[in-house]
Amino acid sequence: MGRVFNFSSGPAVLPQPVLEKVQSELLDWQGSGMSVMEMSHRGEDFTAIATRAEAALRRLLDIPDDYRVLFLQGGATAQFSMVPMNLLREGGSADFIDTGIWSRKAMAEAARYGRVRLAGGGERNGYARVPTPDELDFDPAALYVHYTPNETIGGVEFSYVPDSGSVPLVADMSSTILSRPLDVRRFGLIYAGAQKNIGPAGLTLVIVREDLLGEPATAATPTVFDYRVYADNASMYNTPPTFAWYIAGEVFEWIEREGGLKAMGERNHRKAAKLYALLDASDFYRSPVAVDSRSWMNATFTLADEALSAAFLEGAESSGLKNLKGHRSVGGMRASLYNAMPEAGVDALVEYMREFERVHG
Amino acid sequence: MGRVFNFSSGPAVLPQPVLEKVQSELLDWQGSGMSVMEMSHRGEDFTAIATRAEAALRRLLDIPDDYRVLFLQGGATAQFSMVPMNLLREGGSADFIDTGIWSRKAMAEAARYGRVRLAGGGERNGYARVPTPDELDFDPAALYVHYTPNETIGGVEFSYVPDSGSVPLVADMSSTILSRPLDVRRFGLIYAGAQKNIGPAGLTLVIVREDLLGEPATAATPTVFDYRVYADNASMYNTPPTFAWYIAGEVFEWIEREGGLKAMGERNHRKAAKLYALLDASDFYRSPVAVDSRSWMNATFTLADEALSAAFLEGAESSGLKNLKGHRSVGGMRASLYNAMPEAGVDALVEYMREFERVHG
Repeated sequence: MGRVFNFSSGPAVLPQPVLEKVQSELLDWQGSGMSVMEMSHRGEDFTAIATRAEAALRRLLDIPDDYRVLFLQGGATAQFSMVPMNLLREGGSADFIDTGIWSRKAMAEAARYGRVRLAGGGERNGYARVPTPDELDFDPAALYVHYTPNETIGGVEFSYVPDSGSVPLVADMSSTILSRPLDVRRFGLIYAGAQKNIGPAGLTLVIVREDLLGEPATAATPTVFDYRVYADNASMYNTPPTFAWYIAGEVFEWIEREGGLKAMGERNHRKAAKLYALLDASDFYRSPVAVDSRSWMNATFTLADEALSAAFLEGAESSGLKNLKGHRSVGGMRASLYNAMPEAGVDALVEYMREFERVHG
Repeated sequence: MGRVFNFSSGPAVLPQPVLEKVQSELLDWQGSGMSVMEMSHRGEDFTAIATRAEAALRRLLDIPDDYRVLFLQGGATAQFSMVPMNLLREGGSADFIDTGIWSRKAMAEAARYGRVRLAGGGERNGYARVPTPDELDFDPAALYVHYTPNETIGGVEFSYVPDSGSVPLVADMSSTILSRPLDVRRFGLIYAGAQKNIGPAGLTLVIVREDLLGEPATAATPTVFDYRVYADNASMYNTPPTFAWYIAGEVFEWIEREGGLKAMGERNHRKAAKLYALLDASDFYRSPVAVDSRSWMNATFTLADEALSAAFLEGAESSGLKNLKGHRSVGGMRASLYNAMPEAGVDALVEYMREFERVHG
């Protein structure tokens, strides 16, 4: 059937022009006679690829000079340990905003290494919205504040950056990074698994302010979990996931060609607005998320008649609209609308949903 | 110039038929309408890819049922911490055989978590050979014995499996796994970074006997460093490096088509023998490694006249023989001859070396 529209929450759709370029040079990168996969990470060719990728990311996000960019492994889940092992010093405490499954996982892992404190959110609101700024209650003595700007499973997203004062703000941006402009200066540390808006699974991006790089907080921190070691070795303390790094660079340059983060944000807003407009105009579909907390990246919805869910998914599949099933922990539907999902994909989804409602509504 | 002969020590050459298949299905895996990179790791298609890869590996190595196969991240360097964090219980000690840079790194990291003891080898022999069986002195009360069957940098390799009695044997097989037949039953735990004989960097293979899976030895062990968590979740506790896993499966099936590990071992022995025969027949080239410890995978050598090294490497490069420079820590030359290096590559190298000696000798 050719390429489908893939609404997977991650690993997720990648830009087709990037895949085509990767395909064309898969056995011979730019006359080198080898695949990028086969290159020594310390050789001239790969060093150029790695440097170029970082430079493109720095341009896109206007990353200040006193922030380091690290290309790591282990995904956001490894960061759930790596952040506290490096930053949660004995006797100190970290503030967490709890907006769903991913922030809870981060908090639970941090609690193994020190004191954690709830600064806002929590399960009692059913995770249908993120806290408003005045509902946040930060401890000015906290070592850092951790939050999840976009909850991939629940489909709730912050429309603002919390003001943590002088306390470093740490954000799990796995499913929202590069989806719109971002002021990196507001953050102490940003991390993101690559498999949504960056590239293939197995690469993790960390952007960290230099003053946070120091002796790890936990003596048992594995050397491969020490940010400083990676900062001191240009992310090549050990062999990095070279092929994923290369593809990330191609994705960064694709975003630049598409107009950068401003254009990306406008497009993503348009895509999400089309889908939410349909949900709000219909009694057949429902959005479980409060209007001001709706994610541009992961739109969750249910059918008013749950019994139709299987037919909805089956029909979508056969129309080339794939992976619309919600996460197993919450059910319902989820359409992930990352950068690489073309507007045509959203249009096709909206059209399918209208037609499904017409037939079954 | 088309494909070159790439003697890189890792990331390293991959089988051309595998790269061609990966290229052909890069935008559309078997009619799925998406790249393997874009697939949800929990979807039907990727689950089939993952299961098939493990099954092929189990056939190749005849892995017994009471061993688990894990597909992890972080490379061998992450295993340097993960092994002691899981196995080096308080009050216990681990035995190490020291045969070069990699075994020393593993030992130094383990020493951060508990007691380590030298059971053989050591720097005093200049790392020119591995210890003989009667030079090994194991502590029968050790929690495990760690060794490095093949030292990628030094080019020394064990021609035998040490007999650690009832103490579990742990091996860093990064640069030797799948190069010849192996009796997995002799080992408690085998680990290997993928980027030599398995696939792209960013994937780490662990084969572990089930009775070694338990509560981690160190309370601070990050959840992503807990073998048991990965064993309990079919290596999908978090998003695995899916694309590397898929390519690993393709490599395993390529090895099967080539005749399996017996055929691979015969071919690798032939390749190495050709190169060592030239080194031994010449006063122009020298092998720093004792005959009984020479690696089939990484053949190190020097030119008797060091001043010719630059000309040697330059001539090799322009003949399409790439990455022959030895590791920066030891100098000299190194030809890595992993499974995917065709015999024609070794023949071309030997021919180039003969001609270079004729001109400069």
